[in-house]
Amino acid sequence: MKVDGRLTRTIWLAADGRSVEVIDQTRLPHAFTTLRLAFMEEAAHAIRSMQVRGAPLIGATAAYGVALAMAADPSDSALDRAVAVLGETRPTAVNLHWALAEMQAVLRNRPQAERADLAYAKAAAICDEDVVTNRAIGGHGLALFREAYEAKGGPKAQGRPLRVLTHCNAGWLACVDWGTALAPIYLAHDEGMPLEVWVDETRPRTQGALTAWELKSHGVPHKVIVDNAGGLLMRQGQVDLCIVGTDRVAANGDVANKIGTYLKALAARDNGLPFYVALPGPTIDWSLPSGDAIPIEERAEEEVTLVTGRTADGGLATVSPYPAGTRASNAGFDVTPARLVTALVTERGVAPASREGLLGLYPERA
Amino acid sequence: MKVDGRLTRTIWLAADGRSVEVIDQTRLPHAFTTLRLAFMEEAAHAIRSMQVRGAPLIGATAAYGVALAMAADPSDSALDRAVAVLGETRPTAVNLHWALAEMQAVLRNRPQAERADLAYAKAAAICDEDVVTNRAIGGHGLALFREAYEAKGGPKAQGRPLRVLTHCNAGWLACVDWGTALAPIYLAHDEGMPLEVWVDETRPRTQGALTAWELKSHGVPHKVIVDNAGGLLMRQGQVDLCIVGTDRVAANGDVANKIGTYLKALAARDNGLPFYVALPGPTIDWSLPSGDAIPIEERAEEEVTLVTGRTADGGLATVSPYPAGTRASNAGFDVTPARLVTALVTERGVAPASREGLLGLYPERA
Repeated sequence: MKVDGRLTRTIWLAADGRSVEVIDQTRLPHAFTTLRLAFMEEAAHAIRSMQVRGAPLIGATAAYGVALAMAADPSDSALDRAVAVLGETRPTAVNLHWALAEMQAVLRNRPQAERADLAYAKAAAICDEDVVTNRAIGGHGLALFREAYEAKGGPKAQGRPLRVLTHCNAGWLACVDWGTALAPIYLAHDEGMPLEVWVDETRPRTQGALTAWELKSHGVPHKVIVDNAGGLLMRQGQVDLCIVGTDRVAANGDVANKIGTYLKALAARDNGLPFYVALPGPTIDWSLPSGDAIPIEERAEEEVTLVTGRTADGGLATVSPYPAGTRASNAGFDVTPARLVTALVTERGVAPASREGLLGLYPERA
Repeated sequence: MKVDGRLTRTIWLAADGRSVEVIDQTRLPHAFTTLRLAFMEEAAHAIRSMQVRGAPLIGATAAYGVALAMAADPSDSALDRAVAVLGETRPTAVNLHWALAEMQAVLRNRPQAERADLAYAKAAAICDEDVVTNRAIGGHGLALFREAYEAKGGPKAQGRPLRVLTHCNAGWLACVDWGTALAPIYLAHDEGMPLEVWVDETRPRTQGALTAWELKSHGVPHKVIVDNAGGLLMRQGQVDLCIVGTDRVAANGDVANKIGTYLKALAARDNGLPFYVALPGPTIDWSLPSGDAIPIEERAEEEVTLVTGRTADGGLATVSPYPAGTRASNAGFDVTPARLVTALVTERGVAPASREGLLGLYPERA
């Protein structure tokens, strides 16, 4: 997507042809800066510290992390170590393990002298595929948006934009480009559909600020709301549909996504509103019969008790609204049962959130 | 309750016998300071700016606001003006209107020379009654807590505390003393029941910090969680019951409370957990057939986009996690339909959230 008029992805090969560059998302929305990752350990750190985040981008970064490892040392033990270190950076997003498995499949049983080139080529292919995939997700989501907009009266419904609620950031920053949940928003906006996006702030890490930054850059009207507000807005008829991304979908259609997603899905169901989950195929964990088995990442308490932002004079500061010594609990994700998901939107189309629905789109998994 | 070993209420007559003192809750939990309110307009400002907050305390402060007005000018027009100004400070909490009606009933048709004394006496009586009421709510809630604790195995269930989730602050800071939702927590803790309280942070105003401060002062184990987390904790079996306060209950048992309450009630229902709402009688708005008619306060966008807290060096700072110019929407309350409320806990006992249930406790309203 464009930032200040210049097209950019979230991850790309640096000019030296060996290092990888990423956008440092911990500095957004206050500063747009890039980071150079020259070693596998730096890629692992970038994932762990959420300098890069979002399930698809975590997978892409892990792929390049393996390439960086192979450039330094193409031995079997270096490959094993890269897969182990990168595989432990974030527990919930399954795209990480998918990307590492893809890299291993390309590199194992190949001569060490070829491995670095093969690894860079495969990582680049994973990135390119992510872009194509997300554009396709956007197209299938757009059809759902058009349907909802027509149901409101379409262009004849003067001044009644389609109102979409989203949680966390499942935009191009979470992917290589386009985004999953935000891809149909960009496509709908680009074809002239009037939209208004309710952006959940998504505590504790406030990824809503990333979504607000993306939507602002693209000119899509939006308002930030606290995570508490979506239920009221749905009851008041101020939401037409919800769409979110996901970090892992179990084989039965249960969806792990940023903490709080489940609460919005409950409210959508209680108000008869569609709740869509957008995802690329690699987000499906075919090995898990249900969402109960998805590991939930427990993160640092300070993410809850501390808030960082821009002060009035433009600097950055970190503050705590809490009494000194306050303890917190900080699970990063929750699981939304398939029964609350209206449909899954993938690069292959739209399907019910169920084993049958998923197999309909991915029959090769049957 | 005790603060630093000294008993205090949230509002009291100052030593001059005319002004009123309150705790400045906008400075908590970082500083415990009191404010002197010498004029009706100062009482109105304290309510509007949330220096005092919580439905019962808003009512008590409004009562003293009328007394301050009568001390300055006991005329009919001054009384009318006080009722009008105070009545417009916060739209959702009905205790405000109840207290103003109580004050008017005492003052109308009485000689102007008697009005100031009558007003102070009535305001003091409203405060004393609030304390007795909340202690009674605590007793009835305690019975529910004992039941839930026994169901877990009681004292035989070594190391398994009763885990209670609460939203916003419905503690003694929200009342004159004791609190509504927190009163049973204090009583249970005082009788030795092992408890662990999940404290919703309650964005945007982070009243969870007030609850954390109260619980810390009283020695009750607790952890702060983001507003997104309750659903996951319930699904994981980490919550035994939920209890919250309310700003207005409609005659059918629908409950207006701090934004986000509805989402937690949905999650409790989805997980078969009790969801209790604690309230004093004056929080019931018998004139409203359902919660749909409860006015929802829309507050300033900056409450969402700005966060104030303590910095590492002990000072206070205000930061924004959002891009400059980000718009927000900020409704202060939502309505939880009676069907999601397990029971209402009032000073008269426990009843289903329904017209019949309420009339069972308040038959004089039939």
